Amino acid sequence: MSLTLYELRGLDDRRYSLFSWRAKLALAHKGLAHERVAVRVSDKAPIAFSGQNKVPILRDGEEVVVDSWRIAEHLEDRYPDRPRLFDGAGARALAQFVAGFVDRQLLPRLAPLLIIDVTAIVDAEDGAHLRRQIEAAFKRPLEELAGSRDKDIVAFRRLLDPARLVLAKHEFLSGTAPGYADYVLFSLFQWARMVSPFEVLDAADRMAVWRERLLDLHGGLARAAPARAASPRPA
Amino acid sequence: MSLTLYELRGLDDRRYSLFSWRAKLALAHKGLAHERVAVRVSDKAPIAFSGQNKVPILRDGEEVVVDSWRIAEHLEDRYPDRPRLFDGAGARALAQFVAGFVDRQLLPRLAPLLIIDVTAIVDAEDGAHLRRQIEAAFKRPLEELAGSRDKDIVAFRRLLDPARLVLAKHEFLSGTAPGYADYVLFSLFQWARMVSPFEVLDAADRMAVWRERLLDLHGGLARAAPARAASPRPA
Repeated sequence: MSLTLYELRGLDDRRYSLFSWRAKLALAHKGLAHERVAVRVSDKAPIAFSGQNKVPILRDGEEVVVDSWRIAEHLEDRYPDRPRLFDGAGARALAQFVAGFVDRQLLPRLAPLLIIDVTAIVDAEDGAHLRRQIEAAFKRPLEELAGSRDKDIVAFRRLLDPARLVLAKHEFLSGTAPGYADYVLFSLFQWARMVSPFEVLDAADRMAVWRERLLDLHGGLARAAPARAASPRPA
Repeated sequence: MSLTLYELRGLDDRRYSLFSWRAKLALAHKGLAHERVAVRVSDKAPIAFSGQNKVPILRDGEEVVVDSWRIAEHLEDRYPDRPRLFDGAGARALAQFVAGFVDRQLLPRLAPLLIIDVTAIVDAEDGAHLRRQIEAAFKRPLEELAGSRDKDIVAFRRLLDPARLVLAKHEFLSGTAPGYADYVLFSLFQWARMVSPFEVLDAADRMAVWRERLLDLHGGLARAAPARAASPRPA
């Protein structure tokens, strides 16, 4: 068994890709030893073998798995005796619903507020590219998108209500134990924590307590990654 | 074992409450014989025993269970040998996430577009009350809210992407078999189908195919309820 994860690497070796975090947490959940190879946005040669240019990529022996969701399914199916990422087939289907919600609704709402901070930690060319992309999509300058974020974050926080409902009764979105649905949602907060000093959650919010719980998992794997600025722990 | 479900009843005995539909489908899923008592909005005397004024209410022997989510949990825990509403504890937690999403995001987006049609099938006093309530919340007359629904429905449909993602691979949101998460989402479409001739889904959408599947379940229980107007079957 030889496992290698190819993940995105920013300047100063920052590894903030939320999709890579899903894969890293899934591997840690399964307790699978693996190598990690960091790939620069500007140099995709190391992943040419995968026949495409996106990370994360998991190489499992001879098999190449692309896309964070497929990586999670691969790990679950290939290593069924390890701790489960999905509490059965029904939970797997519903976890994909959560992933769709995070990717289609939460991420597009949060990303524009923080992108200006990302441009400061990538190289100049990537930063300019990112700026053009986001400003074209939102038809506003990044400075303006970030300028109203104290106000706009409220609408984002409201979108978390379905998660709050579950966390009112359970420690994790997936129930009594963390599961892939937790990692998917958490990856968004881990990305935010690594790219921006802006505090996305209210400290009194139970989502912030859950986030601390996720930061602590697997020997503090996520917490060990440097935050852009120290975020206050919830009281 | 004596089970009675108290559900909302509109004019002409229309029983379109989405929360009651969740309870009815949950009971059908479990194959549990039960009595149904219809309660008028304007006459809550028959449910005074429950100590509150909302339906659905399930009376199971001496036990009184209020709130559709609690009814589902009650049925699952009390009748574990019957077909499962939740495919395990993890799926139960994630189904609650789906319920939160339907109630906090889908319903508030769909309801204002159809409420004008509801006012036509309730008595005058209820209709006026409903109008005041919705117009105060949305700060626009019902006619205006409905007037732009051909356009506004597009944003609603987009919110269904997480469900589409699951249904690309599975027959049901809950996986290979229907589960409570399906009933929760479907209840919204069943309500729409019963209160309004407006077609909420595009016929070519896989959500429409899934809706047909749900209409057929349990001997066509949901299909047997009269639609406000015949909706075209997907091709």
